[in-house]
Amino acid sequence: MHIAIDAAGGDFAPRNIIDGALVAARHGGFGLTLVGHRPAIEAELARHGDAGPVDVRFVDAADVVGVAEPPAAAIRRKPQASVRQAAEVVARGDAAAFFSAGNTGAALLAAHAAFGLLSGVERPALATAIPTRRGSAVLLDAGANVECRPRHLVQFAAMGCVYARLSLGVSRPRVGLLSIGEEATKGNELTRDAHRRLRDSGLDFIGNIEARDIFSGQADVIVCDGFTGNVALKVSEGLVEMVEALLRDELNRTFTTRFGFLLSSRAFRRFRRRVDYSEVGGAPLLGVAGLCVVGHGCSSVKAVRNAVVLAYRFANQRFVERVAGEIAALSGAARPGSVKGSSG
Amino acid sequence: MHIAIDAAGGDFAPRNIIDGALVAARHGGFGLTLVGHRPAIEAELARHGDAGPVDVRFVDAADVVGVAEPPAAAIRRKPQASVRQAAEVVARGDAAAFFSAGNTGAALLAAHAAFGLLSGVERPALATAIPTRRGSAVLLDAGANVECRPRHLVQFAAMGCVYARLSLGVSRPRVGLLSIGEEATKGNELTRDAHRRLRDSGLDFIGNIEARDIFSGQADVIVCDGFTGNVALKVSEGLVEMVEALLRDELNRTFTTRFGFLLSSRAFRRFRRRVDYSEVGGAPLLGVAGLCVVGHGCSSVKAVRNAVVLAYRFANQRFVERVAGEIAALSGAARPGSVKGSSG
Repeated sequence: MHIAIDAAGGDFAPRNIIDGALVAARHGGFGLTLVGHRPAIEAELARHGDAGPVDVRFVDAADVVGVAEPPAAAIRRKPQASVRQAAEVVARGDAAAFFSAGNTGAALLAAHAAFGLLSGVERPALATAIPTRRGSAVLLDAGANVECRPRHLVQFAAMGCVYARLSLGVSRPRVGLLSIGEEATKGNELTRDAHRRLRDSGLDFIGNIEARDIFSGQADVIVCDGFTGNVALKVSEGLVEMVEALLRDELNRTFTTRFGFLLSSRAFRRFRRRVDYSEVGGAPLLGVAGLCVVGHGCSSVKAVRNAVVLAYRFANQRFVERVAGEIAALSGAARPGSVKGSSG
Repeated sequence: MHIAIDAAGGDFAPRNIIDGALVAARHGGFGLTLVGHRPAIEAELARHGDAGPVDVRFVDAADVVGVAEPPAAAIRRKPQASVRQAAEVVARGDAAAFFSAGNTGAALLAAHAAFGLLSGVERPALATAIPTRRGSAVLLDAGANVECRPRHLVQFAAMGCVYARLSLGVSRPRVGLLSIGEEATKGNELTRDAHRRLRDSGLDFIGNIEARDIFSGQADVIVCDGFTGNVALKVSEGLVEMVEALLRDELNRTFTTRFGFLLSSRAFRRFRRRVDYSEVGGAPLLGVAGLCVVGHGCSSVKAVRNAVVLAYRFANQRFVERVAGEIAALSGAARPGSVKGSSG
């Protein structure tokens, strides 16, 4: 099995991308199809004497979509962009999934264009694992759709349940609807209508959950529109950064507190690991007929490694087929269409 | 000057409410009008031999709006509810502001009904101070309006600037629009249109800010609709709680880390104070023609004290008149209507 890697996308491409992907592939025993400017990739690989055991293929892609570029226009204008080529590799069946840490919007559009949507899905959704007091939960949509309709949230919930089962090991995931009050009548027009639909969906819907409870572990799957989900996740990231900076300031103020900090630094490292987004590293796009995992633009080597491992595991677990099955069960729709890349 | 206190609202009423209000009044040298079930208030006051120097008046209110009650129906059905009576005290000019830690929706509706809106304001907004790396910022709307139009966000921005000037001491507040990307074209329909209007508003608009940057101190005033604002704030609260719980777990795991924690506990206390919402304690409702400050249902004595001090300071600074002036300047509207409670 091969995983296609957008080697040109991301703030630290190709270095962190290739480093992380190689570590993942070596441990997982799968192949990599590196997509990007070939001389740059080969120069990077030359630094690794140990790429040897990994089956590496190349797909030359002359272009790249910059992080700040408007994605729709860039994807249209640049057929040779690495992220488009990476998606095409999967669509052709030459890889089982692709990973990109580049422009997120461009990766989503490339996946959508190359794979199409699963039957019964109207909008794809980006699913992100978040840490909770009891372990992890999955939040979606994390930003693929800024405007959503109530029925989209029900589809997100069904797709999120597949993620929770396969990745979090929860046999019957509890679904919560992110809103600004627990009662069914609280929230905006979108959440009030979505509440009714989720109640009747056959999913294990536990009702609205307030934003302060998304980390409590009450729900395994938390659904919301992509604007709200993106705000919730980014607020969390910003706050963890501020908390760390302030705590470090305070701990460095006197000798005693500095000494105390040294003594407790192992605890801090363990803590950091529990709230660290790079522990998962990648967010899969659910609802498209192929596997696409996106990472942060500033992904570390570890984050890339974990994201590529996630892509490989999901491919192995026939993630996309299971999502298709869940959506079919939800809508009582006809058999889902063919799934791209599953032969890779 | 008197501040009216909804002595019956909140999880720890009347105890925490009366405790906190008395401390504030004693230090500030202002009077309190305690509104609620009179025997309960007097029993609580009897515990304080030191209420003496504070000028205390009573307004008997037989009813209370419960935290879980749907606010609109409760406010309509209960003319004798403490929060309605507290708002009426201000509307009559017998107090300069009122504070409630009860049902937030009920407090907002009571204020709206008793005071009316300032001329040129279409929606009132709840403004909350948030900690940043450089100090504080104000975020609004924090939850008064779940559905907003672009022009409402411009009004929120203008009103938030008054808060930032008076409370944060920023002479020319920088306004940021909370969205999911920095470019003007990013976000949803609401933010894209609001972006254009803010650019032309004459305010010091610095553009969109992403949720991860609300704690960075880039913007002094952060505007968004009330659904998004509420999610952003509640996510932050939930995360701080989780961070503390996880950190405590980790620090308690071994003797060394526990000892380290003891040594650094002063640093933790200082840190806690910097991220502690109860340091401000109250959120004013902006845009109504009178002063209303709401607090968390679970407000501590300290949170109540700080909220009541905020109410007093804003009354002293003629906060509502300044908001009216700012809105008039924004819209070029006619002179704002009369302001309730300013004679109190």
